[in-house]
Amino acid sequence: MVRRPRRKAEETREDILSMAEMLFRQRGYLAVSIADIAGALHMSPANVFKHFHTKVALVDAIAGRHLDNATERFAAFDQDLPPKEQLLRFVLRLLEGHLQDIQKNPYIFEMVLSTIEAKLEAGNRYRARIELKLDEIIREGIAEGRYQCRDPERAARTVADLLACVLHPILIARDDKETLVHRAEDIVGFVDAALQNNAC
Amino acid sequence: MVRRPRRKAEETREDILSMAEMLFRQRGYLAVSIADIAGALHMSPANVFKHFHTKVALVDAIAGRHLDNATERFAAFDQDLPPKEQLLRFVLRLLEGHLQDIQKNPYIFEMVLSTIEAKLEAGNRYRARIELKLDEIIREGIAEGRYQCRDPERAARTVADLLACVLHPILIARDDKETLVHRAEDIVGFVDAALQNNAC
Repeated sequence: MVRRPRRKAEETREDILSMAEMLFRQRGYLAVSIADIAGALHMSPANVFKHFHTKVALVDAIAGRHLDNATERFAAFDQDLPPKEQLLRFVLRLLEGHLQDIQKNPYIFEMVLSTIEAKLEAGNRYRARIELKLDEIIREGIAEGRYQCRDPERAARTVADLLACVLHPILIARDDKETLVHRAEDIVGFVDAALQNNAC
Repeated sequence: MVRRPRRKAEETREDILSMAEMLFRQRGYLAVSIADIAGALHMSPANVFKHFHTKVALVDAIAGRHLDNATERFAAFDQDLPPKEQLLRFVLRLLEGHLQDIQKNPYIFEMVLSTIEAKLEAGNRYRARIELKLDEIIREGIAEGRYQCRDPERAARTVADLLACVLHPILIARDDKETLVHRAEDIVGFVDAALQNNAC
């Protein structure tokens, strides 16, 4: 009896998220209101509101379900690979993942556009994981004597910024995959050359 | 009599653009229709339509009026400045210009978001001018023996891509100016280190 209500609340939360995703996919993010989601679940809007105060909170939770579970994007590489090759594979993995996300869930684009000023927690966590992985690859490159870099953490932050043009959903939505892969290769070439030369 | 109607058409076009900008500024880009613009000018919507078939074409022309005239952003630097310093000053000039554009015309943000998939001609022209200026600075760096780079044109394209995170209106709208200036400094540091080391 003590744990029952809590589990119920978590289940309700998951039901709301799944229904929201389904409706977003069917009708588009902007067209669906919290009241629509409640109606489709035969709940009162107040009940949905208990779990998610705003549509932005809903977006944050949906993005979190996807991005927090995208662990394969952060899997380890063979440490024998040179750091440039690890960087490239990591960037291409993320790019591939982002393109698939956009294709499978076209409402993501509208969702990202609508919450662009909100700084979602899920986005911050995802970005932090990208920086951590970049930091790991840069430190390996330093350990091997290939990279010269006094502040790997700051370098990782800068590289994460630079990668926006091949990873940010809004900047990649307009280009085809081939263009993006070439761009990713050129960018990783720049980053590798910079890290060899005391960029940070 | 031969030139009269042509001049009139150009004047009408300018009137439409100025009224559209004013209404966008007052009510927001999404809230204003072509019919609203026509109404405010005491014209028929068909007359506006003769000049601009879509709201996207209108956005393209408004963006062109601003960006094509932003010549001070592309003014020459003292050639005695090292290329890194020229790069940094150029990036900070553009950043400052973009922040001012967004502040003075808050509808720009909504306008950019709404046309993000359209690849505006005005945007392409502006991007081409940025690449040309970067190409010029990179070639100067090569001539001075400071940069090593086989393909300056390609390098300029990659640098323009990398700069998205401090220049693209959508990526800078969330951050304060101080953060952006620091980011620009770190990015120019990376680009300079890469260009010294055969990045391209």
